[in-house]
Amino acid sequence: MTAIQARSPLAELVAQLPEAVVSTDPDVTAGYAQDWAKDPAASTPIAVVRPRCTEQVQVVMRWASSQGVAVVPRGAGTGLSGGATAVEGGIVLCTERMRAISVDPVTRTAVVQPGLLNAEVKKAVAAHGLWYPPDPSSFEMCSIGGNVATNAGGLCCVKYGVTTDYVLGLEVVLADGTAVRLGGPRIKDVAGLSMTKLFVGSEGTLGVITEITLRLLPAQLPGPTLVATFDDIDDAAAAVLSITRSMRPAMLEFMDRASINAVEDYTRMGLDRAAEAILIARSDAPGGHAASEIRTMADACESHRASEVFSTDDPEEGEALCAARRAAFPALERKGSLLLEDVGVPLTELPALITGIAQIAADRAVTIAVVAHAGDGNTHPLIVYDPEDADLTERALTAFGEIMDLALSLGGTITGEHGVGRMKKAWLPAYLGPEALELNRRIKTAFDPQGILNPGAVF
Amino acid sequence: MTAIQARSPLAELVAQLPEAVVSTDPDVTAGYAQDWAKDPAASTPIAVVRPRCTEQVQVVMRWASSQGVAVVPRGAGTGLSGGATAVEGGIVLCTERMRAISVDPVTRTAVVQPGLLNAEVKKAVAAHGLWYPPDPSSFEMCSIGGNVATNAGGLCCVKYGVTTDYVLGLEVVLADGTAVRLGGPRIKDVAGLSMTKLFVGSEGTLGVITEITLRLLPAQLPGPTLVATFDDIDDAAAAVLSITRSMRPAMLEFMDRASINAVEDYTRMGLDRAAEAILIARSDAPGGHAASEIRTMADACESHRASEVFSTDDPEEGEALCAARRAAFPALERKGSLLLEDVGVPLTELPALITGIAQIAADRAVTIAVVAHAGDGNTHPLIVYDPEDADLTERALTAFGEIMDLALSLGGTITGEHGVGRMKKAWLPAYLGPEALELNRRIKTAFDPQGILNPGAVF
Repeated sequence: MTAIQARSPLAELVAQLPEAVVSTDPDVTAGYAQDWAKDPAASTPIAVVRPRCTEQVQVVMRWASSQGVAVVPRGAGTGLSGGATAVEGGIVLCTERMRAISVDPVTRTAVVQPGLLNAEVKKAVAAHGLWYPPDPSSFEMCSIGGNVATNAGGLCCVKYGVTTDYVLGLEVVLADGTAVRLGGPRIKDVAGLSMTKLFVGSEGTLGVITEITLRLLPAQLPGPTLVATFDDIDDAAAAVLSITRSMRPAMLEFMDRASINAVEDYTRMGLDRAAEAILIARSDAPGGHAASEIRTMADACESHRASEVFSTDDPEEGEALCAARRAAFPALERKGSLLLEDVGVPLTELPALITGIAQIAADRAVTIAVVAHAGDGNTHPLIVYDPEDADLTERALTAFGEIMDLALSLGGTITGEHGVGRMKKAWLPAYLGPEALELNRRIKTAFDPQGILNPGAVF
Repeated sequence: MTAIQARSPLAELVAQLPEAVVSTDPDVTAGYAQDWAKDPAASTPIAVVRPRCTEQVQVVMRWASSQGVAVVPRGAGTGLSGGATAVEGGIVLCTERMRAISVDPVTRTAVVQPGLLNAEVKKAVAAHGLWYPPDPSSFEMCSIGGNVATNAGGLCCVKYGVTTDYVLGLEVVLADGTAVRLGGPRIKDVAGLSMTKLFVGSEGTLGVITEITLRLLPAQLPGPTLVATFDDIDDAAAAVLSITRSMRPAMLEFMDRASINAVEDYTRMGLDRAAEAILIARSDAPGGHAASEIRTMADACESHRASEVFSTDDPEEGEALCAARRAAFPALERKGSLLLEDVGVPLTELPALITGIAQIAADRAVTIAVVAHAGDGNTHPLIVYDPEDADLTERALTAFGEIMDLALSLGGTITGEHGVGRMKKAWLPAYLGPEALELNRRIKTAFDPQGILNPGAVF
């Protein structure tokens, strides 16, 4: 650790906290400058603060508000929109050491600190026969606090909803260091404004999440998995609509040819490289009904000209197919740097969105691989580029914006589950419109009048 | 209609709206002074305004903000917490004439104006093979706008969630007349703060809801219904915990002896008058699994000493049992005036809550019948009194407060699904605590600085 000058503002913070909570070691701080969005505008934070408890978070925020120092809250740093990009002269407040969990199997709830990883939450509750559904593709590396801050989604959301649907209560520390409890282990509660829901998805702009009360479901068996291969993207998209209008699959994922091939290069698992699209779907209906749901989905795919439809009851084989879908991001990353899109549209516009993205890729001469939580209308176009190639980078950035413009023109959103962060902020006014943006700003100002919480994110 | 004095503020409003939108007829205005909570502090509104479209709501709010006139938004007036109590010198803005709906079966969404009744929404979407789950007991008389304003619950919520879980988007008119669109027909959307969720449950204090985009589910078969009779309330409560820890019933309702007998007096349907409690449960699991879930629930009841367990696959018989549960309110209303409670607790505290309520009834010598959405820990103690009997009224009001104090002491909420309105406002600070109350107030001030929207409700 580098020496901290006596009487400097940081020295005052260090003096109030146990050893090693505050780090100014450049080898440490450099590692907290960016999240997975690799925002090129990131600064190295003046310090990384890793508290172990709510009281330490309060100390940090009291100090930051008294000094007017910017605080960027950070979970595991796996965010894809630059929500945890460090800012000039600011600190990063990382919750990675806040990892306690207690599970109550009788009320099917868990109280968890924000730094525990999503997979660790799943594992801890599974030991009690319970299930925490939301499953971002990064679930083995992302933190539950980050999930709450971004209202993260995942593969199961098409049937089981997103993070906010499982958050019953929060403890948050406000900009001035005040700790506030919102909600709690009550399944229904309408006393006062929906403050808990407001903090979910607020991306660290309203307060620091220090504790989460989660609602859990009884554990479920995984159920059979279906894979359908298509020679035409429009057929695959039409099959999605046919499925979702009549039933609720437990998963309904889409991969285009570029992502299939990247994953196949990476995993050698035998995906059909010639296919234009595949759908991966699952039923977890109880009893014999899963087979009936798989049959319904297979029929929908076949009647939309699927070239091959395959299903498996083997949980390991099903999981391997999900893993292939989740591997799209690391697989594409081996091809180059990535700009990650997250646009969503009303389901009927999914074919137009996917076709339009292919047109943008052709127009800009960039590789754009598309994976999608198709049943939610939420797509992840992955734009491959090389930061050393200025012209390609420029074209990739143009495509990034054009995809959001396309989604907006189709009545869609600029972000379905990753958050606005800093990478998508420029498009937020066009999406929200001036009136809704003004309401967002009023809340931000009412909660953080100094603007020290994650400045530059979202707003 | 009485003559409106030329150049009076009301005359200015009348001049801007089509005929019959504004009514000052005392026979009309008197009927809009109270909702079902029958708040004795109600005033007769100076006018009742019944717009037909968003633009007319904007005219009303522009006028009200320029004149500083209080506006009490009202749906069908079935609220149970005095959220639509008219205030001195104010108008009531009733949405009962805003009744359009359009259903999109492909995206499983509906766009609906606030005045349509819950049952009408259910019926309109059922025509497309779809289902809108939330089902307050008053579903045949309550409006969808009121449901959204209170984040209403119901019997199916134990499995299918509450109103907020089905609201994808809103159009609201703010205090100054600005119309704002929030969210929309996108299943996942994290662009900006969770503004849609903030307006759900805001009880008319932040804006007037003028349009709602609802998420729908595929229609489901009703499934078998189980009734279990208990000689001991604690056994019934223990059976509830045993059921919910291992599975998700589609309904899990509780009635105590007083409510059983009141309903039996009212319906003569053959409920066991000697029982201390009954549970009414349902499975809607697909295929053969419903029978298995009913067996699991029957086993739980039997192992907790149920004196009788009965189940039926007949949908009409099942619906008759639900109707009995929903009839508790009108049945008790025949016994006298009612104070309606809505306290909820963490599920483990349900036995203590029910036992404690019985003790309060004994201590205060008042009849308190308890029905409950038991699987949610949400109870509705119905306190019977006679407004002509000052001493009894006093004791009933004391019991009303003591029940909320009891719920708070058990870690519970003062309202699970009815809202704070005016009847429960005095208990809100104790429930929220000063920090969370302050956050509520900051939002109210930021959205309605003049305080003209539903003044006296919630805050």
